[in-house]
Amino acid sequence: MTITSDIDATVADLRRQVCDLHRHLTRYELVIWTAGNVSARVAGRDLMVIKPSGADYESMTAEDMVVCDLYGNLVDGELSPSSDTAAHAYVYRHMPHVGGVVHTHSTYATAWAARGEPIPCVLTMIADEFGGDIPVGPFALIGDDSIGRGIVETLQHSRSRAVLMRNHGPFTIGRDARDAVKAAVMVEDVARTVHIARQLGAPPLIDADDVTALFERYQNVYGQPGRTNTEETLR
Amino acid sequence: MTITSDIDATVADLRRQVCDLHRHLTRYELVIWTAGNVSARVAGRDLMVIKPSGADYESMTAEDMVVCDLYGNLVDGELSPSSDTAAHAYVYRHMPHVGGVVHTHSTYATAWAARGEPIPCVLTMIADEFGGDIPVGPFALIGDDSIGRGIVETLQHSRSRAVLMRNHGPFTIGRDARDAVKAAVMVEDVARTVHIARQLGAPPLIDADDVTALFERYQNVYGQPGRTNTEETLR
Amino acid sequence: MTITSDIDATVADLRRQVCDLHRHLTRYELVIWTAGNVSARVAGRDLMVIKPSGADYESMTAEDMVVCDLYGNLVDGELSPSSDTAAHAYVYRHMPHVGGVVHTHSTYATAWAARGEPIPCVLTMIADEFGGDIPVGPFALIGDDSIGRGIVETLQHSRSRAVLMRNHGPFTIGRDARDAVKAAVMVEDVARTVHIARQLGAPPLIDADDVTALFERYQNVYGQPGRTNTEETLR
Amino acid sequence: MTITSDIDATVADLRRQVCDLHRHLTRYELVIWTAGNVSARVAGRDLMVIKPSGADYESMTAEDMVVCDLYGNLVDGELSPSSDTAAHAYVYRHMPHVGGVVHTHSTYATAWAARGEPIPCVLTMIADEFGGDIPVGPFALIGDDSIGRGIVETLQHSRSRAVLMRNHGPFTIGRDARDAVKAAVMVEDVARTVHIARQLGAPPLIDADDVTALFERYQNVYGQPGRTNTEETLR
Repeated sequence: MTITSDIDATVADLRRQVCDLHRHLTRYELVIWTAGNVSARVAGRDLMVIKPSGADYESMTAEDMVVCDLYGNLVDGELSPSSDTAAHAYVYRHMPHVGGVVHTHSTYATAWAARGEPIPCVLTMIADEFGGDIPVGPFALIGDDSIGRGIVETLQHSRSRAVLMRNHGPFTIGRDARDAVKAAVMVEDVARTVHIARQLGAPPLIDADDVTALFERYQNVYGQPGRTNTEETLR
Repeated sequence: MTITSDIDATVADLRRQVCDLHRHLTRYELVIWTAGNVSARVAGRDLMVIKPSGADYESMTAEDMVVCDLYGNLVDGELSPSSDTAAHAYVYRHMPHVGGVVHTHSTYATAWAARGEPIPCVLTMIADEFGGDIPVGPFALIGDDSIGRGIVETLQHSRSRAVLMRNHGPFTIGRDARDAVKAAVMVEDVARTVHIARQLGAPPLIDADDVTALFERYQNVYGQPGRTNTEETLR
Repeated sequence: MTITSDIDATVADLRRQVCDLHRHLTRYELVIWTAGNVSARVAGRDLMVIKPSGADYESMTAEDMVVCDLYGNLVDGELSPSSDTAAHAYVYRHMPHVGGVVHTHSTYATAWAARGEPIPCVLTMIADEFGGDIPVGPFALIGDDSIGRGIVETLQHSRSRAVLMRNHGPFTIGRDARDAVKAAVMVEDVARTVHIARQLGAPPLIDADDVTALFERYQNVYGQPGRTNTEETLR
Repeated sequence: MTITSDIDATVADLRRQVCDLHRHLTRYELVIWTAGNVSARVAGRDLMVIKPSGADYESMTAEDMVVCDLYGNLVDGELSPSSDTAAHAYVYRHMPHVGGVVHTHSTYATAWAARGEPIPCVLTMIADEFGGDIPVGPFALIGDDSIGRGIVETLQHSRSRAVLMRNHGPFTIGRDARDAVKAAVMVEDVARTVHIARQLGAPPLIDADDVTALFERYQNVYGQPGRTNTEETLR
């Protein structure tokens, strides 16, 4: 099956982006072996581009990335889509502003998820990036819409772009795939720092008004004029 | 001594595979200096290919890998086999479905082994990969069949492909050497994550029925059709 | 706007230095994504060179570094200066002996900062490098002089070149940018080691007289004759 | 000053070895910036080869290594010897079987040193490599023989090749410089593993008779026939 020719260029570009963005997951050691996946919405179409199941990070190529509809059905590609495709698809169906989704089992975020404990907002970086505590989602089995529904129900009441799915690991969302990858990198970093802070005491929460001030400033001021925070690479 | 010519090609191929698979042990920092070893069964023969003793990971070559019978006697090769050869050999003699064995002293798995405490099944990744708690094997001295017997007696009553040998470190098994290496990578990853989760509380166990559902699904569904999970590299 | 031609060479050289010094922040894993920044004073001028906001470590070049006055106003450069520029500028205005400033969110130093707890002087390396406990600065919001003032008020009463800003992270100063980078590397290293020591007990403090003896010796004796400690690269 | 010509080749070779062995210290992250040093005895002469003070790991060359007598006086070389030279020299004067000395501030070993707590022999790897608990040496200031004397007095009553100097860090010895480097790598590895094991409980000690059996076997059996354990690189 092939997709209609008028969006071929867009899809080819997203395949390159999605494939390439996985290198941040390995560089920051958020994934091991073939675990973890990145997807991107095809703007204006009910389609997404996602990593195939069990693909090796070192050898996978842009062409290996697969195109699915927003129910997880394969539309274009040689390989089976990621086993987490249904969760990504559910998010795209129910959160129209989301352009990218990432899932990892990164160590510290998964440890908070295993305990079912939100990451408290005790760092300015958490306020900047997540606008408050990073919430916990329900325990859900793979195989139907449970994981996707758990993600959406948790995130729609939060400023956070990350959710810690119980006994499982983090999912992150973003305006585009790069923004969701950044959130995956950041959630692990703050999960680690707050874990370490908590090992020897209880770091005080940042005042709620200060959290809001930091969040709004960072979302609007940081980075270069005319660029979103998701395009911060200079060239 | 040389092996019969009709299996020369198979053995040469396994020497390359076994040598090459050690790079996962260094990449994921499961071994230091010359510690750790991978072996593979020569299918249909009472032979195995294993790393030589004290070999340096950076400079060792496929030709350095040695061939032993399943009592650990050297059959082909210039160098002495790994000091853990007897344990690998015992496993191959008593577990005919096992095609690969790996031993490391990876940090977190060894820490659980030092305390003699099984890794509890509190993550979907543990259910997927190991089908339940990761068990502890007995304390055993090197030099006879004690280590091998401890591995076999522990694993034959478990779905787990990993055992934590007391005061020593993990051994893993697999359908082939790559599958055993994957188990060695995964056991360290979950040992680390659960350790970190436990430092600040007690993560709840996943319900036994859910563990079984996850395990059976992962063993049968994950990856690409027509490939086993042990062949997940795309090319 | 361009700067006067007679200091063009100096500024070009500082741009290369400042850009290049960021590689220590990535090599020692003190920063993720685009967080963290290095600046250098332009000697004899009320100017500083600093990283632009949201710049990517892998692709940024010397030319991307921007020149600001000591109130944080852009003087030369295509990009917006780091969002932490006001803090750097405040330090240069109020501490004339400071030639370099570094800010990171390095994990362990930030964890001490989150708890608001100074790092106690329990290692000879802390005595050598910091001359005593590493102090905590106040919680301060970004956007005015609060952060800069907190840094200066804390460090002017200390031998330490590092301050742990509450709920935020470390800032370090130095005779030049390289010296401040070295302090950023060292503060994370000792923050990690003392954290780990403290997890299993209370390491004894080094006697105050011994701290002073170590600090004075290290500042005057270590390294090569005719070189400052900040020029310890041999070529 | 130049050394007599008949040992020029030996010294040149040791300079290459000593310089090159430092890469293990960086690879295993035992050192940061310019901290840490390796030395080697010049066999049959009252001389040693050691890293110069404050030398950068990335750029230093074999020619930068300096030759000192066993009182730490410079005999050949352009640069000042390591600030730890007196400690190395004291060890060579008082332990004639020692051919190499290494000093680092590696994180976990230094954490045990900061608490002044020996690393208990709870792993077969500790029994193999160190023959029992890894002992703690006294607190000693730099500048005279105190550090060297503390090392020697601690190690002469132990099978261990590593000593944890209080509030400072580990020193290791070996038959040659490579053996001392191996001990530096191993002491950090076991310091980390036992630390992590201890965080969640008390790992049982290995029985003293088993420790001795493991130590004697490993010192005599491991590796390739006709090679010492310090020459385990295959080529």
